[in-house]
Amino acid sequence: MKTTYFTPGPTELYPEVGHYLQQGIKENLCSINHRSKEFIDIYKHTHHSLKKLLNLPDNYAIFFLNSATECMDRIIQNCVESTSFHFINGAFAERFCKTSVELHKKIEKIEVEYGRGFNFKDLIYFSYPELFCITQNETSTGVAIDPEDIYNLKKHFPESLIAVDIVTSAPYVNIDYNKIDCAFFSVQKGFGLPAGLGVLMVNFKCIEKAIYLKSKNISIGSYHNFLSLYENAVKYQTTETPNVLGIYLLGKVCEDMIKRGIENIRKETEEKSKLLYDFFDGHGSLKLFVKDPSDRSQTIINIETGKKQAEIKKKLSDNGIIVGSGYGNMKETQIRIANFPMHKIEDVRKIIRVLSH
Amino acid sequence: MKTTYFTPGPTELYPEVGHYLQQGIKENLCSINHRSKEFIDIYKHTHHSLKKLLNLPDNYAIFFLNSATECMDRIIQNCVESTSFHFINGAFAERFCKTSVELHKKIEKIEVEYGRGFNFKDLIYFSYPELFCITQNETSTGVAIDPEDIYNLKKHFPESLIAVDIVTSAPYVNIDYNKIDCAFFSVQKGFGLPAGLGVLMVNFKCIEKAIYLKSKNISIGSYHNFLSLYENAVKYQTTETPNVLGIYLLGKVCEDMIKRGIENIRKETEEKSKLLYDFFDGHGSLKLFVKDPSDRSQTIINIETGKKQAEIKKKLSDNGIIVGSGYGNMKETQIRIANFPMHKIEDVRKIIRVLSH
Repeated sequence: MKTTYFTPGPTELYPEVGHYLQQGIKENLCSINHRSKEFIDIYKHTHHSLKKLLNLPDNYAIFFLNSATECMDRIIQNCVESTSFHFINGAFAERFCKTSVELHKKIEKIEVEYGRGFNFKDLIYFSYPELFCITQNETSTGVAIDPEDIYNLKKHFPESLIAVDIVTSAPYVNIDYNKIDCAFFSVQKGFGLPAGLGVLMVNFKCIEKAIYLKSKNISIGSYHNFLSLYENAVKYQTTETPNVLGIYLLGKVCEDMIKRGIENIRKETEEKSKLLYDFFDGHGSLKLFVKDPSDRSQTIINIETGKKQAEIKKKLSDNGIIVGSGYGNMKETQIRIANFPMHKIEDVRKIIRVLSH
Repeated sequence: MKTTYFTPGPTELYPEVGHYLQQGIKENLCSINHRSKEFIDIYKHTHHSLKKLLNLPDNYAIFFLNSATECMDRIIQNCVESTSFHFINGAFAERFCKTSVELHKKIEKIEVEYGRGFNFKDLIYFSYPELFCITQNETSTGVAIDPEDIYNLKKHFPESLIAVDIVTSAPYVNIDYNKIDCAFFSVQKGFGLPAGLGVLMVNFKCIEKAIYLKSKNISIGSYHNFLSLYENAVKYQTTETPNVLGIYLLGKVCEDMIKRGIENIRKETEEKSKLLYDFFDGHGSLKLFVKDPSDRSQTIINIETGKKQAEIKKKLSDNGIIVGSGYGNMKETQIRIANFPMHKIEDVRKIIRVLSH
């Protein structure tokens, strides 16, 4: 029986990834020089495919880093002079905030209970934020923030920078990148690729901020500072020898997704999430963790299982379906089901069927 | 005709890497959770295999980072309070030094002309160095430093930390890790693996230094600071989702190398380098860049070609052999031939045969 991973990431590989890997090896992609024309062509293909898939404006640069965690680190180093402002409703938003503290910046934050969203309309800001850090899709809780709420922040604070964590919502989430300043994801989630590549997309305002910080003699980091990254990115190159295979595979998967159509991917994602939410909404003993439907993520679905977690996970795995455990404190009392572009509707129906008995 | 890469890295893949990749995909290694028992088992295997292969003492921790460049960054952040001391004889030693400057540390340095080694006996130090940064094998110039010279530094400055770049000499170089404090390499060189993984090995003195810096309220970085890395490494885990496939492949290649015997690998490396050095020493127009035989690297061989570079590279590539160009200023007037464990003596003989005509 084939095993299918519905885990929040690492997750099921996107179809054909195994084949592309073999092809890459055959074409000596792991032996070519990272300053060669061959590499530049791979980089270009990935850059343009990703830009097209996500409808990224021309004033954006794409940096290939190593993980989403690194993206947080580089954003804080390059975009914060004094204070970052964090919306915290889960473990990954906390990680972003902790990064800022560890890099000796000051932080301001708004925290809500796990499983809940923010009431953006009622928020009061005591100072003009320098950088907003927003976890658009909280992988630990399954809470998503409506992009419109993020755009409203931009309206009220046009001078602030806005960094958006779309680690488990990309490429599903439809972001207007003109209304934010940077966003990042890692490829082992919605893109279904081997882990080891983080993608950071930044606009010119972020680059300008890094230039400003440097001019004020504030360290913006070493080899992966925005200026060094940008200088290389415009040449379709990286500062150091990168994860060439990862960049190549990302380009291939983006190309596949473009062929499939991002609108189709979005529609299918919503169809699958509706099936799951409707099923668990009506379930007798299993309860959705996120109570307010408007706060619910389309790609990460947290279900409270109480003491039945092991039993449910086993039932599913006996049927070839691997789901994730809860995160942190909820590790043993929740399951998390990912709903990414490689997950098929028939397998979602299978989950429902298995859990119906 | 099969193409063989004799480039300094990325280079020819170690035999069977393509097969291991396929096996890894088949075993769902890209889908498993990085906190799962399956991942911990992979990590353990790689950790113990590498430790055995390199004869790493028990007071060493191994950190899986993303590149050798990142290793430099993390060493400076975690081991330098005020000043790092650099031996500079090439572009990678300069990169290490620049990293320290970019992270707002002070630097002291000794520089020699590219292609030459250091006269360690005659060096005068004006203060007691905090951290020595040594590029044991300079990939840009083909100059290697005798480990004995490094051990002597330790004798004279037992309180200093010694960081050693063995990026293109590992696993060939026979280092007594008790006489240094940390060392690092990236896997796309002597281990013949896809790029995207840097390996940093540090002893307790380095960890203690990071603790000391933190206690003095000096930032040691965020997710990849030594304390966070160490805390996870003792559990055979990583701070963030790592390059799982890279860690897995490294373990497999280390296992293969252990079977082959590190002493055999070292002997074969020296046999192959002797063939190349003897050939170029006696060549009419092609000249070895490193004049003093005691400064010559066994794994990176720089040859001055003058204006004939393109012609020579073509002659070799027509025969299925790809060599590297020179580095930086020497890009168009030198070739570099790597001599790593996956390079076969018959292919070395082929290089000599092709260039004899």
